[in-house]
Amino acid sequence: MNKITILIHCKDRPNIIASVTNFIAKNEGNIVYIDQFVDREQNEFFMRLESEFTDESFCTEAFKESFKTTLADIFKMKWRIYSSESKPKMALFISKYDHCLYDLLGRYNSGELNLEIPFIISNHKDLKPIADNFKIPFYHIPVTKDNKEDAAKNQLELLEEHGINFIVLARYMQIIPKSMIDKYPNKIINIHHSFLPAFIGAKPYHSAFKRGVKIIGATSHYVTEELDGGPIIEQDVTRVTHAHSIPDLIAKGRDLEKIVLANAVKLHADRKVMVYNNKTVIFS
Amino acid sequence: MNKITILIHCKDRPNIIASVTNFIAKNEGNIVYIDQFVDREQNEFFMRLESEFTDESFCTEAFKESFKTTLADIFKMKWRIYSSESKPKMALFISKYDHCLYDLLGRYNSGELNLEIPFIISNHKDLKPIADNFKIPFYHIPVTKDNKEDAAKNQLELLEEHGINFIVLARYMQIIPKSMIDKYPNKIINIHHSFLPAFIGAKPYHSAFKRGVKIIGATSHYVTEELDGGPIIEQDVTRVTHAHSIPDLIAKGRDLEKIVLANAVKLHADRKVMVYNNKTVIFS
Amino acid sequence: MNKITILIHCKDRPNIIASVTNFIAKNEGNIVYIDQFVDREQNEFFMRLESEFTDESFCTEAFKESFKTTLADIFKMKWRIYSSESKPKMALFISKYDHCLYDLLGRYNSGELNLEIPFIISNHKDLKPIADNFKIPFYHIPVTKDNKEDAAKNQLELLEEHGINFIVLARYMQIIPKSMIDKYPNKIINIHHSFLPAFIGAKPYHSAFKRGVKIIGATSHYVTEELDGGPIIEQDVTRVTHAHSIPDLIAKGRDLEKIVLANAVKLHADRKVMVYNNKTVIFS
Amino acid sequence: MNKITILIHCKDRPNIIASVTNFIAKNEGNIVYIDQFVDREQNEFFMRLESEFTDESFCTEAFKESFKTTLADIFKMKWRIYSSESKPKMALFISKYDHCLYDLLGRYNSGELNLEIPFIISNHKDLKPIADNFKIPFYHIPVTKDNKEDAAKNQLELLEEHGINFIVLARYMQIIPKSMIDKYPNKIINIHHSFLPAFIGAKPYHSAFKRGVKIIGATSHYVTEELDGGPIIEQDVTRVTHAHSIPDLIAKGRDLEKIVLANAVKLHADRKVMVYNNKTVIFS
Repeated sequence: MNKITILIHCKDRPNIIASVTNFIAKNEGNIVYIDQFVDREQNEFFMRLESEFTDESFCTEAFKESFKTTLADIFKMKWRIYSSESKPKMALFISKYDHCLYDLLGRYNSGELNLEIPFIISNHKDLKPIADNFKIPFYHIPVTKDNKEDAAKNQLELLEEHGINFIVLARYMQIIPKSMIDKYPNKIINIHHSFLPAFIGAKPYHSAFKRGVKIIGATSHYVTEELDGGPIIEQDVTRVTHAHSIPDLIAKGRDLEKIVLANAVKLHADRKVMVYNNKTVIFS
Repeated sequence: MNKITILIHCKDRPNIIASVTNFIAKNEGNIVYIDQFVDREQNEFFMRLESEFTDESFCTEAFKESFKTTLADIFKMKWRIYSSESKPKMALFISKYDHCLYDLLGRYNSGELNLEIPFIISNHKDLKPIADNFKIPFYHIPVTKDNKEDAAKNQLELLEEHGINFIVLARYMQIIPKSMIDKYPNKIINIHHSFLPAFIGAKPYHSAFKRGVKIIGATSHYVTEELDGGPIIEQDVTRVTHAHSIPDLIAKGRDLEKIVLANAVKLHADRKVMVYNNKTVIFS
Repeated sequence: MNKITILIHCKDRPNIIASVTNFIAKNEGNIVYIDQFVDREQNEFFMRLESEFTDESFCTEAFKESFKTTLADIFKMKWRIYSSESKPKMALFISKYDHCLYDLLGRYNSGELNLEIPFIISNHKDLKPIADNFKIPFYHIPVTKDNKEDAAKNQLELLEEHGINFIVLARYMQIIPKSMIDKYPNKIINIHHSFLPAFIGAKPYHSAFKRGVKIIGATSHYVTEELDGGPIIEQDVTRVTHAHSIPDLIAKGRDLEKIVLANAVKLHADRKVMVYNNKTVIFS
Repeated sequence: MNKITILIHCKDRPNIIASVTNFIAKNEGNIVYIDQFVDREQNEFFMRLESEFTDESFCTEAFKESFKTTLADIFKMKWRIYSSESKPKMALFISKYDHCLYDLLGRYNSGELNLEIPFIISNHKDLKPIADNFKIPFYHIPVTKDNKEDAAKNQLELLEEHGINFIVLARYMQIIPKSMIDKYPNKIINIHHSFLPAFIGAKPYHSAFKRGVKIIGATSHYVTEELDGGPIIEQDVTRVTHAHSIPDLIAKGRDLEKIVLANAVKLHADRKVMVYNNKTVIFS
């Protein structure tokens, strides 16, 4: 049995849903999930649909071609069709913090994540033993003031060589160069250790402490050129009090960061995120 | 412009979605919301759909008739079609606690609730002044050991006379007789002051205190013959500590009860709740 | 029986706690609550203590005098001693939004708030009927570009005349003049409809919508001259999705605002808040 | 510098706090933390106090002896005094689930937990490689219907040999024999995968699914002879919907279990938990 996921984005107009569901029916598919969203102010239409095809002769490529001419061209859709067999390939960028790394690899190991991790890249060697334990190739690419372009080139080569679909910055702590953002638009997921848009930039726990907030947060977002300004995928928060020191906030924040990043990774890997106007539509 | 909401429940089989969306398209409707759920274990299909019809000749009754013969009979659907113009009529049953009453009437007054409240019934006179302030008719129907049947008869007469669609027990504190449950199946909403199924029955805050839980909750559910055993619509919780006395739990619980009941009422009034197997499907 | 609450703030040094508890013991008081906090970085000491005195001859004024000379002067304490009999007097400033007003008056009526509300001030007449229903005097003091000083003068006269201890801005929507802030330092409580420090200023729900956050919040803080920059007393948040419109955010936010403001009012009225460095210490 | 933590439990009566703080002062200690709780209904007094002693001649054993005769005997206190230098020793009991194990060992590795883990015991060999990676001795003690007594004896020998202070059942999935509970009263921490007291016993996620709850939880508690009936240390919850299958609940629950168990372990290891009447007092 073939199972596909279809993502559609176009201007809203009558009959899109009927046309698409009809098309599926004519191709002898059974819709097992359909969700849609209309931004009525902007007049934008979004849809996510999962369909199963039991006929042995079903061919995803032919289906795509037919979809394009029958529907996508007419409704001027931006669209993507994924076979549920093809797991996305994720590159993990890390630095010296291990909590998100342990968390993601633990979930990966237990089969909770519907993706593949061909390798890990780090600008430091510290966490190589963890990669080794989980038997995932580890590339040490140091990043200094002077070698930024070379480092990015090395990274991009690895990404292309392995056919990477998206990148996760698990507390990577380095600015991503424009060249990489352009190659992976809305495909680089960062975890920022604050409740954005509060406390953009470095040391957000210190800023949160200074401001005396009663709740701290973490935010996972796609990386754009604007620092911590990309489309937000997931956020979560936890309560703090005056009695929490900065190290306490950092420790409590680690738990948030792990869960928020893991949720964002799952949503992205399951093709449940669509982006427009620097915002996300999440079909969950 | 006409706007309708369609709720469908039937055994899952191929092409339901395409058939329904096609039917809408043929009737020149534009689907503005579609959501569906399949319980794959039980093979049950659920759908909620909102559609707009701009044609002046559109007639809801004719549409319903056509829907029945073209779709519902063939797929053996349980179905309901509502015009968005018709607001459901809700009867409010109260006793002596005023917090849920104030909360619901405040929301009603501010236009937050998409419903009408033709009257309030209480077994005590205490809260009549609040009903008066909000200019809602108030019926005092005392309930004693000996007059239960008469009281229920009086209540049912009022309900029928005003064409009531659903009943909300805003801390009414009385057992609802089987005769009324049978007349309003999955149409009587109760708020229970615990995180069900923990602490069924009387004095749940006392039980929660005794057990030393660290979180208390509130649950809104449809009333069935089994005490506090009906389909759950909404739940919420809040943290407590050893330092909270029973009166503290009761005070904190009031805030939960208000919000949980208000959310359940909104979901029901907006026709977003479907029931099967003593559980709810919530399309929100 | 007399019951008092003592709040202490001074530089940290050895033996403060022992000295204070000793002093209570010598005065034949029984400590029923003690909590303390040391900011070890800043070397600041904070304490809140409740004590009961059963001796009939106990005199709060004499106790205060003795406390001052025996302890406060020596440890250079900032301190306050309250008799639990004296409820603080709160002035309520409102404008046209009624949700926080209904919520606070409902709690006030049910005895949940340990305070008195001598009157309500509004720059509009719209909500006078609610004040009337709850039988609380209502003063209509319009505020225009040209009469700001006069309006503030009128307000201040009312505040002084009634011996008001603190002011609550229940969505008052006006800038408070410096003259009033100076008279009531850390005694004017505002509710801001965002998770501060995100979305300072006007229309935070619009900004939250535009940024595409997945969680919205509300913040109650003391008013200082810096807009939305005063010490935070309480915050809370709730989840939102891409499907929530601005009116949806506003509606969801109302529930947050009510609860956050009510909690802040309770903490302040129960003398559980201390302020330093533009932050709060909350003994709850 | 010496730092000690004192836990006190006795009947409430006047002057306990003053007597204790005085005693500390006379021993030239500086109190850096004090918290107390009085259950006024039961007339029970609880206190947790941290004090620093800079004098080089300070001797914890002599202090304890003096505390006993000067205070504890007079007030009939149950009391414990810990030196902050002595980290408690924790034995980890596991079975086949690895999520809580990875989580606890990750925190242990990063220095977040103030304790030592001399060894891990499991009734299965599956997770030995994880123990090896973290370089913690692993004992495989199979448990069958017929060898329960022998297994318990082996376990108890290991516990005694290593001077274990408390035991953590990280999804151990076996009933703990009375002999072990008696040896470690309120020192065996279990994680139950439901919001107790709802869904006691086996398969709580299946029961939660069947009941159609909208929120699931996890509970960490001390093990007593009553199944899932011991004093609750920590609980947390997360929202679910009708669309979550049982495997979804299990996956979401894993995140809860990890965090709830880790928090309970931290509270216990930091000596912040006191137990009475099958409930906990948490000084956090």
